[in-house]
Amino acid sequence: MAATVTPLRRKGPPSLDPMIGLVAADMNQVNSVILARMQSDVPLIPELAGHLIAGGGKRMRPMLTLACARLLDYQGTRHHKLAAAVEFIHTATLLHDDVVDGSGLRRGRRTANIIWGNSASVLVGDFLFSRSFELMVEDGSLRVLRILSNASAVIAEGEVNQLTAQRRIETSEERYLDIIGAKTAALFAAACKIAAVVAERSETEEAALDAYGRNLGIAFQLVDDAIDYVSDAGTMGKDAGDDFREGKMTLPVILAYARGDAAARAFWKDAIAGHRTSDEDFAEAIRLVQASRSVDDTLARARHYGQRAIDALGGFATGAAKDAMIEAVEFAVARAY
Amino acid sequence: MAATVTPLRRKGPPSLDPMIGLVAADMNQVNSVILARMQSDVPLIPELAGHLIAGGGKRMRPMLTLACARLLDYQGTRHHKLAAAVEFIHTATLLHDDVVDGSGLRRGRRTANIIWGNSASVLVGDFLFSRSFELMVEDGSLRVLRILSNASAVIAEGEVNQLTAQRRIETSEERYLDIIGAKTAALFAAACKIAAVVAERSETEEAALDAYGRNLGIAFQLVDDAIDYVSDAGTMGKDAGDDFREGKMTLPVILAYARGDAAARAFWKDAIAGHRTSDEDFAEAIRLVQASRSVDDTLARARHYGQRAIDALGGFATGAAKDAMIEAVEFAVARAY
Repeated sequence: MAATVTPLRRKGPPSLDPMIGLVAADMNQVNSVILARMQSDVPLIPELAGHLIAGGGKRMRPMLTLACARLLDYQGTRHHKLAAAVEFIHTATLLHDDVVDGSGLRRGRRTANIIWGNSASVLVGDFLFSRSFELMVEDGSLRVLRILSNASAVIAEGEVNQLTAQRRIETSEERYLDIIGAKTAALFAAACKIAAVVAERSETEEAALDAYGRNLGIAFQLVDDAIDYVSDAGTMGKDAGDDFREGKMTLPVILAYARGDAAARAFWKDAIAGHRTSDEDFAEAIRLVQASRSVDDTLARARHYGQRAIDALGGFATGAAKDAMIEAVEFAVARAY
Repeated sequence: MAATVTPLRRKGPPSLDPMIGLVAADMNQVNSVILARMQSDVPLIPELAGHLIAGGGKRMRPMLTLACARLLDYQGTRHHKLAAAVEFIHTATLLHDDVVDGSGLRRGRRTANIIWGNSASVLVGDFLFSRSFELMVEDGSLRVLRILSNASAVIAEGEVNQLTAQRRIETSEERYLDIIGAKTAALFAAACKIAAVVAERSETEEAALDAYGRNLGIAFQLVDDAIDYVSDAGTMGKDAGDDFREGKMTLPVILAYARGDAAARAFWKDAIAGHRTSDEDFAEAIRLVQASRSVDDTLARARHYGQRAIDALGGFATGAAKDAMIEAVEFAVARAY
């Protein structure tokens, strides 16, 4: 672990393509595991799971496992099964999230709960979650099992925390960070850390990859939450204003409320309580968020965590893997522009 | 492993009390683990989980783990944590089941989904499920992890299978047995089998306890499904006629439909499709089920599996543990009378 971060001089906006290219061959293996392990004698399971899994997701989390393994020059194949396990945990979470949020659109397609109903989504989510543990058990590392079972519990805790904060205007930035640290960043961190475990690296390196993933995850979620107030369904692949109409206390709202005058505060109280759900109300919300620079500053927070993610890689040798991992962070925080 | 089954000569109806007494001290330890491990900084989690966990369940599955450990004269304490893990898996399943079925009553109390909503039930279920894996990982046995992660996947598969069979009058007895073998018996089997693993017994003994649990689980579910057509909410602690109104193809219905004349078959087709949900319709369903001896024969099937459960214990030494385990089976199949 001896290297320096070389500032990149690249043409054009940052892209995920270098990371996608870096792990392409490995990702084919992961996709084979995913396809094989979502099968079942009960036809609805592969049908429903396949809709989401084949539905054009970026496979961000398994990609991180694979990229970290490349960074560490890991030569084995254990990470393929484990990356699939990570994706199954994520997919199970998405299925349950869409039920919880009553979402109708994800990645630009109708959600499974809309097509097959909430019950099927809950149960197939449970199946994928169980399958992810079967995959980990087959790998046989108790350390990996500990990391991922803990991440799963933390995710669920974060989701319940988010549910409890919903429609509560007094939610603080600190609580919001707790929530996204749990519901999003915990799995990013675990996905990265397990690469160090299979590569049998030091605890320092495990911790560095954990920090990379965790900070990237926080940045990623901050940008996602910002996008909900600048974008429409076409560009983000989910229903525009979903967070707003569901009364989710994301950072743009927390900042806009904190910075708002009496009229703005009254608006947010009403809106988060669920009394302002029209298109005009959402337009007003966007106006208030922009006027208070709340989206800009949410994105500034994202850049802060993105920089911490990049700095967490300081100890690793420069090369294609590290360059790709840095550019992935830059891509994540630049998405909203 | 050398012993014979001595027919019991007991006064009064069979009871679960001997098994409850047998494991009472161990169950206190299990309850401590359960209470400690359902805690969270997010208050809704212990609140919701506690409602169901403290809600007067029999703790049948962890009790089986403890009873089997006693049967094997296991002297350690590992089974306490693992029995708690088994109960968490079961609790998570119940929380999700009640969402899937839209149930309003369980064990004579309002269900969590009615009190806190479906979203909270889904997410707290996920949390408990993750916690169960954390407990298993702490125990550290990959064999136990394999048994219980596989059981979890099979349970979820069975639940999806049941969902797909719902409102399908053509569901066969074979498919019904597949479903209850997965959704109920798999966890009974696993709960028993892991006792043999922690006690480091032979594969023969593992398989015998697996068979005991599996057959008991099938018998247990058959009786549960029979009770839905002989009882009311007061005696069974759930809404009377729930299965009927949800269009669940349980064995009493499968037999009554197979044995019915044209009029009865027309009734069942209508009812299972969801067009007969009144109290009068349910009364007619009970009449048809009784007239075709479908409940009696469902209970006869239960006794068949109960006997297989008892015979699976043939190789174990006679004693208080074995007696209690046999009487628990007799109790399970006698519940409907």
